[in-house]
Amino acid sequence: MPRPIVTLTTDFGLSDHFAGVMKGVILSIQPQAQIVDITHDVNPQEIMEGAFVVSEMYRWFPKKTVHVVVVDPGVGSSRRPVLVEAAGQCFAGPDNGVFWMLIEREKHKVRALTNEKYFLHPVSDTFHGRDIFAPVAAHLAKGVPPARFGRLIDDYYRGVPTAPSRIGRRIWSGAVLKVDHFGNLITNFRAEEFPELRLRPFVMRIGTREVSSLVRTFAAAGAGEPALVTGSSGYLEVVVNRGSAAKLLGCVAGSPAELRIY
Amino acid sequence: MPRPIVTLTTDFGLSDHFAGVMKGVILSIQPQAQIVDITHDVNPQEIMEGAFVVSEMYRWFPKKTVHVVVVDPGVGSSRRPVLVEAAGQCFAGPDNGVFWMLIEREKHKVRALTNEKYFLHPVSDTFHGRDIFAPVAAHLAKGVPPARFGRLIDDYYRGVPTAPSRIGRRIWSGAVLKVDHFGNLITNFRAEEFPELRLRPFVMRIGTREVSSLVRTFAAAGAGEPALVTGSSGYLEVVVNRGSAAKLLGCVAGSPAELRIY
Amino acid sequence: MPRPIVTLTTDFGLSDHFAGVMKGVILSIQPQAQIVDITHDVNPQEIMEGAFVVSEMYRWFPKKTVHVVVVDPGVGSSRRPVLVEAAGQCFAGPDNGVFWMLIEREKHKVRALTNEKYFLHPVSDTFHGRDIFAPVAAHLAKGVPPARFGRLIDDYYRGVPTAPSRIGRRIWSGAVLKVDHFGNLITNFRAEEFPELRLRPFVMRIGTREVSSLVRTFAAAGAGEPALVTGSSGYLEVVVNRGSAAKLLGCVAGSPAELRIY
Repeated sequence: MPRPIVTLTTDFGLSDHFAGVMKGVILSIQPQAQIVDITHDVNPQEIMEGAFVVSEMYRWFPKKTVHVVVVDPGVGSSRRPVLVEAAGQCFAGPDNGVFWMLIEREKHKVRALTNEKYFLHPVSDTFHGRDIFAPVAAHLAKGVPPARFGRLIDDYYRGVPTAPSRIGRRIWSGAVLKVDHFGNLITNFRAEEFPELRLRPFVMRIGTREVSSLVRTFAAAGAGEPALVTGSSGYLEVVVNRGSAAKLLGCVAGSPAELRIY
Repeated sequence: MPRPIVTLTTDFGLSDHFAGVMKGVILSIQPQAQIVDITHDVNPQEIMEGAFVVSEMYRWFPKKTVHVVVVDPGVGSSRRPVLVEAAGQCFAGPDNGVFWMLIEREKHKVRALTNEKYFLHPVSDTFHGRDIFAPVAAHLAKGVPPARFGRLIDDYYRGVPTAPSRIGRRIWSGAVLKVDHFGNLITNFRAEEFPELRLRPFVMRIGTREVSSLVRTFAAAGAGEPALVTGSSGYLEVVVNRGSAAKLLGCVAGSPAELRIY
Repeated sequence: MPRPIVTLTTDFGLSDHFAGVMKGVILSIQPQAQIVDITHDVNPQEIMEGAFVVSEMYRWFPKKTVHVVVVDPGVGSSRRPVLVEAAGQCFAGPDNGVFWMLIEREKHKVRALTNEKYFLHPVSDTFHGRDIFAPVAAHLAKGVPPARFGRLIDDYYRGVPTAPSRIGRRIWSGAVLKVDHFGNLITNFRAEEFPELRLRPFVMRIGTREVSSLVRTFAAAGAGEPALVTGSSGYLEVVVNRGSAAKLLGCVAGSPAELRIY
């Protein structure tokens, strides 16, 4: 029997006891759990960055994996804790947008986590990762069916569409979804939706530069020159060979990117 | 049979091979071990910060968990390696104060780690994490009884009390125990010992500011205004909604905090 | 049966989904795998730093451990993916020097990873960690014999010798291999090859200083004065008691170090 997998994605950083405490809570309830750190370095309270990480990682895990996601500036306030079922997996976290990109992409059911039987008590006002999301995940990993945790809801958080919007005949307005560790700018343009880029001249205006070449590998980009590649996520990325596109172009997550195809 | 849990708390950082080497040593001795990273980002050689992390995390783990704690500026010098038994768990690390907050709180036995049979040889002068603490933890996780590792001692490290001291009829002098990843200031005032804060006016003088409101959640603090919350550890924390109290107030671990209740 | 161990050493950092995705890929193929993070914080694209971490960590793991190493600036270009068999263990990664220090030290066989049956498809041009190295490692951990993955090659990457070179009767020219988390300078001088250091006066010229004392422990170094210790890896290290030698001496990985024994 494979051991049940529980992944952790948080903005808790790695210098405190918070992530370790969640692991202790999970193992106290389900000692067979295989705990997998995705990241604890989502920028503090950057919900959309957490949403991007979630949307990129789940599909590589087996069915029945349980994901705990805690980027939660509103902890203890009126935002609800939820359980999302999608892609044959379960996701526990706050209803604040952190599951938006997942929900946009996959068939899903969302439940409000209301059954306090599966929480730790007393529930603190500032650490639902420990008191709600970790124990719920551990009980899911023990085989408790999702329906036990609370009712289906349909008024869960919905954001604006992640895809670029068409603002002219051959012009699209998009944005940077995430700056990765290497300084590559992951945009919201899906490469498969813009096959003309291989055939026709184009310009992407982004940060301080205009980018007009599409290359296959990082190494193929001219030294110091930004270029587009089809990133491993399927999104177009702006990269600089052995350099940081984020620094060169002055971009951060959310920076606008305008694509014009001639 | 649940697999034995071994946790790691160090100041080794994550850019070297040190933490990985300890994991290899543990798995070579006890292949069934479930290794759990608590943190490797205790600030280098900050023993009291390590002591705080230990004191906050162990209680969330199951009985019989083995904890390895290595914040060890005196490695290879006369400070002794010790094994602490407390709360039904075991803790291996240097006798330099890193277990002080644990010992202050729990019934405990302390042994000097002297049985070299359980060390790796030769024992280096600079990496007891690899040569003493990891192998001892792995043997504990294999079921070797604590008494085999060395004799009980009673002249182990004791520090000053962690709690605030009363310096006037309604005035207490305390300190910041830790600045967390979000910049929240975790003080040494336990909320349960100051229930009057909910009923009476008070002022906490800390860093550059006076804090006089107590709120329930981060989100309830006024924008840009520091406030107290009861943190998830039970300590009063100074927080700033969507900001860093450490930066706003200019505080670090050890900064004084004076509480006056009217 | 102990679970098969798969370690990860990358320059992916911990703020993205990349490391998590590799873990998902491995567990999808071999659910019994025990995944061990060595580090994801090799400096971006610093191949020789990755080579050093690999050379220091593998010997502490059990036979049959599978190591995935991804420091790969040339991903998608002509550099080959390889599988190294050495020390009873397996190593998957790019043929760009990241295995050079391992190969220099151990008997080894190197195979080109050519059997696409064990890759994920389509293979991206920018994330072979996910599409080649993680799945190959997982299949190795399932028991697939190394020969299935591709043929032995002998034109794999070889670098210059790591050891210092003798440039005078009692003068050697060496270098800093790595700056560790504490700012200690790990040089390429192996202590066992320079036993005279304990007996005779010497000077190591390194960065802005001349270092002429050899001490046994960090704590024994004079306050603020750099000294040599025999590090836990067997290399001579320049250290400063409770300080950073890298900062004091202005050194980075690759900085020259000249040793003269009188």
